[in-house]
Amino acid sequence: MIKTPHLSADGIIKLYDKNENYQGLILIQRLNPPHGLALPGGFVDIGESVEDALVREMKEEVNLDVEIESLLGIYSDPKRDPRFHTATAVYVCKAYCTPRSGDDAKEVFIYKDDELPFDKLVFDHEKILKDYLSVL
Amino acid sequence: MIKTPHLSADGIIKLYDKNENYQGLILIQRLNPPHGLALPGGFVDIGESVEDALVREMKEEVNLDVEIESLLGIYSDPKRDPRFHTATAVYVCKAYCTPRSGDDAKEVFIYKDDELPFDKLVFDHEKILKDYLSVL
Repeated sequence: MIKTPHLSADGIIKLYDKNENYQGLILIQRLNPPHGLALPGGFVDIGESVEDALVREMKEEVNLDVEIESLLGIYSDPKRDPRFHTATAVYVCKAYCTPRSGDDAKEVFIYKDDELPFDKLVFDHEKILKDYLSVL
Repeated sequence: MIKTPHLSADGIIKLYDKNENYQGLILIQRLNPPHGLALPGGFVDIGESVEDALVREMKEEVNLDVEIESLLGIYSDPKRDPRFHTATAVYVCKAYCTPRSGDDAKEVFIYKDDELPFDKLVFDHEKILKDYLSVL
C-alpha cells in the first residue's frame, strides 16, 4: 500500500474591480483548526486535477471564479501543516467582483500587498506570500 | 478520512560530462508496469519533501546525484497513470557522471533532445517532455 503526503491547492488571488483596478490579495479567517489567516485552498479530490481543485476551492471558500495565471511552487515541508503531512501546489490567479466567505472560510479579507499581516498567517503561508512578493 | 491523489516526483535530467559538455536526457526502461520508457521518478514518502523525494529517487533509479534547477509543473490528469490517480511534480535537474540502473529502472538510456522516442514513453511523459522542449 503506497502512502504519500496529502495533496492540496492554494490560491494567491489578485482581486480586480470591473475597471481593472487592482484591489489586493485575498486572505481568509479559517473556520477550522489551525485558526488564523490563510490563503484560500483545500484538498485535491481523487479524480480531479490540481487546477480543477484550485478553481473549485476558490469558488467554495470565497465565491470567486478565478483564472489561473501561473504555478508559484509546491510547498511540501513535512512540518508545514500541524495536522499531518500536506504538500500544496500554490497558484497565482486573478479574479473580479466581490469575494464572499463560505465553506472553511469564516471571513474574507482583502489586503494591499504592502499591508499583509504576516504574523497572523497559519501554515507556511507567510513564506509562500514572501516568495510571491519576491518574484513580482 | 481525507483521500487525495498519490504524489510523485519525476526528473528531467540533463546529463553533462566533466567538461560541461551536454550529453542528453535520461530515460529508463521500467521494470514494473506500465512497461515502456519513462522519466525516472517515484512516490513521495510521508515525512519527505517533494524535492528530497526527487533527489532520492534519482539516486535509487539511475544512481545520479542531481541538482534541481526548476519546477517544470505539476501533472495531475486523473487518467495519466493507468494504475490509480497520481499527481506528479516534474523538476528539471542537472547531473554529471554516468548513470547506472537500479530499483524500478531495468535499463538507462541517454537521448539527445532531437532523438527522444516519444512513441515509446508511458504515462503522460510525452506531453511532459514536449512541454519541457517548448520552454527551453
